Amino acid sequence: MIRKLFKNANIYTPVDYGRPAAGEAQTVLNHFPHGAIIVEDGLIKAVGNEPELFAGVEKSCAGSCDVHMEIDCAGKCLIPGFVDPHTHMCFAERREGEFEMRIGGTPYLEILGKGGGILSSVRAVADSGEEKLYAVTLKNVLSALKFGTTTVEIKSGYGLDTQNELKMLNVIDKVARTTPLDVVATFLGAHAVPPEYRNDKDGFIDLVIREMLPAVKAQGVAMFCDIFCEKGVFTIEQGRRLLKAARKLGFGTKIHADEVHDLGGAALAAEISSISADHLLAASDENMEKMAAAGVVATLLPATAYSLRKPYARARKMIETNLPVALATDCNPGSSFTESMPFIIGLAVLNMEMTPAEALTAATLNSAYAIDMASRVGSLDVGKQADFLLLDGKSPAVLAYHAGVSPVSSVYKLGEKIV
Amino acid sequence: MIRKLFKNANIYTPVDYGRPAAGEAQTVLNHFPHGAIIVEDGLIKAVGNEPELFAGVEKSCAGSCDVHMEIDCAGKCLIPGFVDPHTHMCFAERREGEFEMRIGGTPYLEILGKGGGILSSVRAVADSGEEKLYAVTLKNVLSALKFGTTTVEIKSGYGLDTQNELKMLNVIDKVARTTPLDVVATFLGAHAVPPEYRNDKDGFIDLVIREMLPAVKAQGVAMFCDIFCEKGVFTIEQGRRLLKAARKLGFGTKIHADEVHDLGGAALAAEISSISADHLLAASDENMEKMAAAGVVATLLPATAYSLRKPYARARKMIETNLPVALATDCNPGSSFTESMPFIIGLAVLNMEMTPAEALTAATLNSAYAIDMASRVGSLDVGKQADFLLLDGKSPAVLAYHAGVSPVSSVYKLGEKIV
Ligand SMILES: [Zn+2]
Ligand SMILES: [Zn+2]
Repeated sequence: MIRKLFKNANIYTPVDYGRPAAGEAQTVLNHFPHGAIIVEDGLIKAVGNEPELFAGVEKSCAGSCDVHMEIDCAGKCLIPGFVDPHTHMCFAERREGEFEMRIGGTPYLEILGKGGGILSSVRAVADSGEEKLYAVTLKNVLSALKFGTTTVEIKSGYGLDTQNELKMLNVIDKVARTTPLDVVATFLGAHAVPPEYRNDKDGFIDLVIREMLPAVKAQGVAMFCDIFCEKGVFTIEQGRRLLKAARKLGFGTKIHADEVHDLGGAALAAEISSISADHLLAASDENMEKMAAAGVVATLLPATAYSLRKPYARARKMIETNLPVALATDCNPGSSFTESMPFIIGLAVLNMEMTPAEALTAATLNSAYAIDMASRVGSLDVGKQADFLLLDGKSPAVLAYHAGVSPVSSVYKLGEKIV
Repeated sequence: MIRKLFKNANIYTPVDYGRPAAGEAQTVLNHFPHGAIIVEDGLIKAVGNEPELFAGVEKSCAGSCDVHMEIDCAGKCLIPGFVDPHTHMCFAERREGEFEMRIGGTPYLEILGKGGGILSSVRAVADSGEEKLYAVTLKNVLSALKFGTTTVEIKSGYGLDTQNELKMLNVIDKVARTTPLDVVATFLGAHAVPPEYRNDKDGFIDLVIREMLPAVKAQGVAMFCDIFCEKGVFTIEQGRRLLKAARKLGFGTKIHADEVHDLGGAALAAEISSISADHLLAASDENMEKMAAAGVVATLLPATAYSLRKPYARARKMIETNLPVALATDCNPGSSFTESMPFIIGLAVLNMEMTPAEALTAATLNSAYAIDMASRVGSLDVGKQADFLLLDGKSPAVLAYHAGVSPVSSVYKLGEKIV
């Protein structure tokens, strides 16, 4: 057994009561100013203030373990590793030129005419071998790790046919096997409408249900199924049909909901008990209440609003509605190219009026619940993985205070220092 | 002589026509997609596209130089090093706890009552030796360097008495001598009203003019004199009096102008031909025109608006008014704790509707003019210093596109790789 004692740490962590933190629970952190963590074989054995911590457990291993180390955290702030629960980090090409057109005011239709938009990412994936796709994805994931992300969800969705969706999911699987991060894969075959199905969206959903879902299931390469419900993309009814089919096959379900128009994606998430509904910029008060009642996590993506110059999701209203809020990067080459969870927390605090405690809970515990990983990560609780960060600051507020600069100075995964 | 050839670079730079770029001039960059730079003893000898570049100059040194190197830039984007023309990076203590109170809605007066606000930074400087002050400043400056800042202005202003103002300026001078950056010092003795002068602000201005200015002048430790004109701080008349006195002693002048209220700081800057007026969130159209006519640079500080949750300065209006716009971090422990010029450029593009070209010009050439350094830095022109950055991206747009993530991969100062 490898036993490590991390001592002299200023620990802040949300508390896991067995479900995503909602309402006031997401505003309060546990604080151990003279904190220590005992790690055994990568899992948290004990956490708390010294010396109380050692009243309940043996401080000394009494020779029972193979390796015994003490790590002095020098009084630094220690928080759980970030869980980024919504990304499209698996892509083949950046879209920097399109970004410049878009912020220069070029209308979206003209950008599409010039080969831009999501379908350009679809073509780039089709034109790329697994090796290139792996190299780009790996670079994104390792950058995220440097910013403190120790668990990340990655969606397919730039394939849009069985072969290329599986190619993406295989690449995501390879990233999971070859990096220290926990990687959760989501199948997003219904991310956009392929040109050949422009006038037969129902036919495309049929294809996803009939061909793609079983193939993904057979290979065991995705935990969740997701769909982009929006005007001009897929309807709520199509979302219901796909996600119910996915549920039958054993997938968890997620929805890109109410990003631009209040179509009722949030209500659908509540109706079918999706684990999360994501975006929600246009979600109504009524549908927020439905989500809260159904225990659906609201995953908010502030960098997308930032990059698209849109109003932000109404985080304060959601928290008041007892809706558990999670935060994610939405990292993708079109609408939100960022891997930095500290940047996301900064936007949440300064542009969505979340408190630092709420933002930290949303970026760790609630985001772990949003991808069904809370039994292993998302808070510093006994039995969970020893995934944590040291910050150059006094409290989680430094994540917003040090604007545009990451205060993450060290990253530990399963008790191992990896950054 | 040391001669270096940087080749295979995708070069973007503003063009220096001998004055800060105004109006349309600030929207256009020179672009050398097959670019190369010849550097001799740290200065730019030639810049342009290969092979045209080598028509006018000798590519080979023909044995005339002591060292001859070729550096392959691998097709990367190459831009001038950033010039950050407004910072308060010399401080002794961060104010993270105050930040959390402020964003939590604690009224400013209550924060002051709890020992927060600018006067807490003044107390921290008074309580610190030069060594501690140097350590904190150095850390800030070296972080800025990693983000691509190769020239930085740093203000005093947490001293507010002769001894402590000189202590700050000596520390800034030591940072200038001990780091690779060009550091420009500004004397900001009139940054706030010391408690003992609360009811005699004119008396304090007298003290600054009679005692501090000559002492700073005698030690030769500041290039500019600055003052914070705002309701509750110093009046326009006090600003005029101080800056005219500073001018007589040979200082360049700057003004913290119209940050909260339109007091006419912009108009004063025009009246006395200050090199820059800074903040300008509340500046009127009329006073912008006066600044433009007088050739005053408008130095905008978007991270301060971001961190204080305020509306941004009207950059588009200024550019339309032919006013040269510069960008700065305003790095300070209270209202804007950031050293990252890429973050500033991102905010300028996404929240102030500047184009990437305008933002790059504002962060290099115009900011060099804002601190009278344009003869040496701020653009890649023959005779200037070989201060430049390699970016992980295709164009300067990546500085905004890669949100919250710095694309600066290498930093060269006087032709030497220092990051
Ligand atoms: Zn998405
Ligand atoms: Zn300032």
